Amino acid sequence: MQSWINIPENCDFTIYNLPFGVFMHPTGEPRVGVAIGEYIIDMAETASLGLLDSTDAPKEVFRSKYLNDFIALGRPVWARTRHVLTELLLEGNDRLRAHQDTVLQPIEGTQMLLPIRIGDYTDFYSSIEHASNVGKMFRPDNPLLPNWKHLPVAYHGRSSTIVVSGTDIHRPQGQTMPKDAEKPVFGPSNRMDFELETAFVVGETTEMGHAVSVAEAEKYIFGMVLFNDWSARDIQKWEYVPLGPFLGKNFASSISPWIVTLEALEPFRTECPTQEPEPLNYLKSSRKKTFDINLEVSIQCNTDKEYQLCQSNFKHLYWNMSQQLAHHTVNGCKINVGDLIASGTISGKEADSLGSMLELSWGGKEKLKLDYGVERTFLEDYDTVIMRGFAEKNGIRVGFGEVRSQLLPAIITEHH
Amino acid sequence: MQSWINIPENCDFTIYNLPFGVFMHPTGEPRVGVAIGEYIIDMAETASLGLLDSTDAPKEVFRSKYLNDFIALGRPVWARTRHVLTELLLEGNDRLRAHQDTVLQPIEGTQMLLPIRIGDYTDFYSSIEHASNVGKMFRPDNPLLPNWKHLPVAYHGRSSTIVVSGTDIHRPQGQTMPKDAEKPVFGPSNRMDFELETAFVVGETTEMGHAVSVAEAEKYIFGMVLFNDWSARDIQKWEYVPLGPFLGKNFASSISPWIVTLEALEPFRTECPTQEPEPLNYLKSSRKKTFDINLEVSIQCNTDKEYQLCQSNFKHLYWNMSQQLAHHTVNGCKINVGDLIASGTISGKEADSLGSMLELSWGGKEKLKLDYGVERTFLEDYDTVIMRGFAEKNGIRVGFGEVRSQLLPAIITEHH
Repeated sequence: MQSWINIPENCDFTIYNLPFGVFMHPTGEPRVGVAIGEYIIDMAETASLGLLDSTDAPKEVFRSKYLNDFIALGRPVWARTRHVLTELLLEGNDRLRAHQDTVLQPIEGTQMLLPIRIGDYTDFYSSIEHASNVGKMFRPDNPLLPNWKHLPVAYHGRSSTIVVSGTDIHRPQGQTMPKDAEKPVFGPSNRMDFELETAFVVGETTEMGHAVSVAEAEKYIFGMVLFNDWSARDIQKWEYVPLGPFLGKNFASSISPWIVTLEALEPFRTECPTQEPEPLNYLKSSRKKTFDINLEVSIQCNTDKEYQLCQSNFKHLYWNMSQQLAHHTVNGCKINVGDLIASGTISGKEADSLGSMLELSWGGKEKLKLDYGVERTFLEDYDTVIMRGFAEKNGIRVGFGEVRSQLLPAIITEHH
Repeated sequence: MQSWINIPENCDFTIYNLPFGVFMHPTGEPRVGVAIGEYIIDMAETASLGLLDSTDAPKEVFRSKYLNDFIALGRPVWARTRHVLTELLLEGNDRLRAHQDTVLQPIEGTQMLLPIRIGDYTDFYSSIEHASNVGKMFRPDNPLLPNWKHLPVAYHGRSSTIVVSGTDIHRPQGQTMPKDAEKPVFGPSNRMDFELETAFVVGETTEMGHAVSVAEAEKYIFGMVLFNDWSARDIQKWEYVPLGPFLGKNFASSISPWIVTLEALEPFRTECPTQEPEPLNYLKSSRKKTFDINLEVSIQCNTDKEYQLCQSNFKHLYWNMSQQLAHHTVNGCKINVGDLIASGTISGKEADSLGSMLELSWGGKEKLKLDYGVERTFLEDYDTVIMRGFAEKNGIRVGFGEVRSQLLPAIITEHH
């Protein structure tokens, strides 16, 4: 397919992609947009022109701060919208092109907003490599716990601090227990980390009591984003037993602004890792339930120069999204449109495929030499973390763009 | 103070209380109400009459499905509303009384709704008796973990399954590891439990990065409810290491419909337990940061007959609400109006003050004999759990009413 909009080489936002986001229109009004090439299609404007009438989506869902109302219209509307947009963007179709001056906003210089009003947020722990690595460090005797291969372990996180790419993060303060100390101390975290994750957006609300099966689960997924699960390892280590991570995680998580639909990812469907032992019936899955998505993390150390820290792939995950959703709802737990469900850190087997500083520096023991005089174990103030992801096959590319955020120093509060 | 509305003896909803809730008006419209005696004051109707004009609350906040918009108006508006209502209800004031036919709805027969649109939900673990008891059962070598006395341990829970009193709950299905088994099994939970808790509703939104101090924390609290944190102990036990409780908890939590304001609880302010060792500066608290609130749990075993299972008190909690909120935000975690923050199970020192079946039956080992032929270790299908709470001093009573829910059998789903 060829569009009348120019798509630069290696651009994530091809005509095969059409991810949804919310942007700030120059009038100061938040609007739904779709990315293509170096432009955002203003969906509110497109709908005003009557060009989306056949989708049956009410115009007001595109003149909204959040995508929730559009998503809640359901899968048939998402599919029609994608279909109509594809037609309008194809070379030779001038119906949208005739209005390009009002309908297209350049991505460059446009502020993107958090695209969904997030209800509940859950974080899984589904990479066997990550769980084993962290296990070795936190519990040397007992790295991969007995339940891990039987169920996709997860915990609830905090929705209120999920922010969009471009939002700066402050190093959190908190309570930590220094090695060999008798009493905990208070201060800025000394072990700041990212976690390379993806997350999916729930596209359909269930009734309380309803369990979603593995076979049906993908119908409940609208799309995916990149997810940086910021972590303060020293705070986490002291607090997490017995009820799990809390302040070591809930100060911030960052997502990429464009939601890539499962439909756009379909060409990149691939096989999941073999599961041994075989899971219980409610978690049994056909093999082709994952996607071949390249992931990478880079940092900038207070300059524009980027250092790549790792390269991983979504397909490494032991538990797929369908199994995650089936497990999450098997007890009748209600899910809502706009819930966000993250993968957990996605590490691979190779040394350069580890998705956190904790693993890359092996608990802070090994310095990563990035450049002459530039080395890191954990993150330092003013470091910018950039995560990128894309799928590519047979000349078709579908990408996520990036999630980028700078770590700023702690805001110091006096406690008397 | 004497009202022109009759307040029956031992009624929780005195003129000193005036708790806020949301009820279904006979027209099918949800409206904000305030409970007094055996009646609900229809706040939408009262506002329409112009009787709330001096509160500066826009009328539409009372014609709402949720209290969030009213709460977001801020503490001065809550205080004026309480003040104006008190005046209107006093013996001798006929301004509201003249309209009692349209303004008063009987509580009996009126459906109460979930009063807040809950953003994030957090559950603390702040009773030293509960934490020690559970610790002894789950980790005999290591009952109270090293961090427990240094920080108020908490985890994030699920907002989507918090329901109002009167909503039936289904026994969840899930994965458990039977004793001495080699593989986990799937089926309905066999160890269904309640947890006697309270929860507070956040009344003011913070900016991300802002830490609320212990001294200021109560300003961020709108009021309190009773909270039944339903738990499936067998599911919880198998899943909870290392990331905390998930499916063992997130199938349901039940709250009482009336939010009792901190202002109404003021006469019952009392001293917190001594904390030894002294906490870090950011958690240091003056002593009078808790309230003397009697709490109790009863069950009905598929008949109307009630058996009291325990009596406890909110003041037993080792960590107070101000410390909980200071800890929760010390890393900059944003809180929003409508967030719900629960206490954790409130157990006391006495054998009849334990706030869960897990503790009352000591992990299922001791049968509770309730009546001739009626005994329980954990909950059985069709049991109704009723929690009540009230404060009383110098003839003034301020109560929460009750949270009541029946446990129904599991919804069995076939997995092929």
